[in-house]
Amino acid sequence: MKKFLNSADSFLDDALAGFAAAHPGLSVDPATRVVTRAGGAVPGKVGLVSGGGSGHEPLHTGFVGAGMLDAACPGEVFTSPVPDQVLAAVRAADSGAGTVLVVKNYTGDVMNFRLAAELAADEGLRVETVLVDDDVAVRDSTFTAGRRGTGATLLVEKIAGAAAARGGDLAAVADTGRRVDAASRSFAVALTAGTTPAAGRPGFDLPEDEIEVGVGIHGEPGRRREKLRPAREIVRGMVDAVLDDRPVERGREVIVVVNGLGGTPLSELYLVYGEVAARLADRGVRIARNLVGDYVTSLDMAGCSLTVCTAEDGFLDLWDAPVDTPALRWGV
Amino acid sequence: MKKFLNSADSFLDDALAGFAAAHPGLSVDPATRVVTRAGGAVPGKVGLVSGGGSGHEPLHTGFVGAGMLDAACPGEVFTSPVPDQVLAAVRAADSGAGTVLVVKNYTGDVMNFRLAAELAADEGLRVETVLVDDDVAVRDSTFTAGRRGTGATLLVEKIAGAAAARGGDLAAVADTGRRVDAASRSFAVALTAGTTPAAGRPGFDLPEDEIEVGVGIHGEPGRRREKLRPAREIVRGMVDAVLDDRPVERGREVIVVVNGLGGTPLSELYLVYGEVAARLADRGVRIARNLVGDYVTSLDMAGCSLTVCTAEDGFLDLWDAPVDTPALRWGV
Repeated sequence: MKKFLNSADSFLDDALAGFAAAHPGLSVDPATRVVTRAGGAVPGKVGLVSGGGSGHEPLHTGFVGAGMLDAACPGEVFTSPVPDQVLAAVRAADSGAGTVLVVKNYTGDVMNFRLAAELAADEGLRVETVLVDDDVAVRDSTFTAGRRGTGATLLVEKIAGAAAARGGDLAAVADTGRRVDAASRSFAVALTAGTTPAAGRPGFDLPEDEIEVGVGIHGEPGRRREKLRPAREIVRGMVDAVLDDRPVERGREVIVVVNGLGGTPLSELYLVYGEVAARLADRGVRIARNLVGDYVTSLDMAGCSLTVCTAEDGFLDLWDAPVDTPALRWGV
Repeated sequence: MKKFLNSADSFLDDALAGFAAAHPGLSVDPATRVVTRAGGAVPGKVGLVSGGGSGHEPLHTGFVGAGMLDAACPGEVFTSPVPDQVLAAVRAADSGAGTVLVVKNYTGDVMNFRLAAELAADEGLRVETVLVDDDVAVRDSTFTAGRRGTGATLLVEKIAGAAAARGGDLAAVADTGRRVDAASRSFAVALTAGTTPAAGRPGFDLPEDEIEVGVGIHGEPGRRREKLRPAREIVRGMVDAVLDDRPVERGREVIVVVNGLGGTPLSELYLVYGEVAARLADRGVRIARNLVGDYVTSLDMAGCSLTVCTAEDGFLDLWDAPVDTPALRWGV
């Protein structure tokens, strides 16, 4: 394993210390590992909290800031935060208007966030949970019952975050988040496996001429292994998998994210985006907004995911709303 | 080699087509491979043009937009654009106020941009050239006489771009760019080599427990190979190399870029940034602004570079000025 680290044990704390140093507008509590806006909870605003295992950066810490998350609780690499850490994030985000938890559908996350929500309720805090389960590759997987939660998390956090910033109440913000998840589908392909600091070796073996089609963001197995093919053919399979799961009518507008999994050059992601755009055009789908880059990663995995979200009522307006976070910034 | 591509021959054009599809505010001429703002040259404003071999994305195409470049001319991967392509970019950027060319110091780039400047002058266009040569690792290298141009290119393009946007004349914008280069020093470390689509295999061999200290952005050899060590020790060497080349007085403010070379997870870059900040604090240097992320890459190389630029008169104000490009966006 070759990584920039001091020791596997201190990796997360060292990375969070650097994150805190780089972003004076944010605050990292080294005791709880909760990342918040330096100004604290916004009075009267519904809080938005997310978290999960580390290793998917910029998700979630890079999405803390105005217009998106109020707090993030990063667990150890590929390991859910414990309930007490999630509870600390809820306390930090709550200003009396209640808090929405955005939870990717992995068994450990679901359990720990549920326990945290119960602990928060015991303290009189109002909490709603939005479960993200957008990955159409497999139903039930390593660590998951049902579909996995992956790239759509970014869309849920941005759009629900904008709804909260505009003064939506707890039920409305949670409903917005759930509508985004319901409108979103994702599919990922890996060319190589990522390496966790603790394991020190790639999470799975993949022959030099094969790809994992439908991979999860922790390297979970997908639908099948295939020989490496031209990008156009790989992308066609990704687009079709997404649209076959949730058909999109011709003429409909969508938000598209072509997301790098950590080890893929930006030039390749743009190449993939071009193929996605061409295939969607073939199927009569119109791209209203797009993002191309590394947003929901799997350490240094080479590969990418595609997320398509139909532009339901209000989504584009909320997508365009100002956001000021380390990883997404516009309108400010 | 495992990459998302249709063929090595069409890689650049396919990637540019995807880039154009993703960014409707920009325009890509498939014939000349010149990227411009969709609105064309800004009347009365000095034009800013850069380019060089592809494979370093988002540099330079991702820096085209308001507050930064007017045009970029990407060559084939790791290959300088030819003079005619550079000339096409100058023509596209020129609105009568003259054009500044930002050129990284590689022999091919220097020669081709010089020829293009002469061709432009023959057409009556006024051109000034800013040479970027910030990399302190080696004096003379593969493809280079003198120091290599690397991470500081981003700083030159942002700060000179802001000077142009504010109405600086040709001499003033070029002078600003030269002052940024003079104030900047960089140093990079590779953990792995990148793979070009044409070669299909890593650009150099590096044993599993070794790193290349002082690597160039095309995989050029650095100062030496070392055993992998804790990040704190590696970073100390990088900071000291930069400050030994150009000492920074105690109490001085600097802009710091911790730049990923393409294959390194963001969490590791933040960890590196934390160590950089600690080492600079030890040496009494104050970080006024920072960037952490992939800006000047080397395909899928794992590694990072450090750039330190002293905050000379006006630099921070120009740094903070609005910028609206695919890879850098704030204030808009």
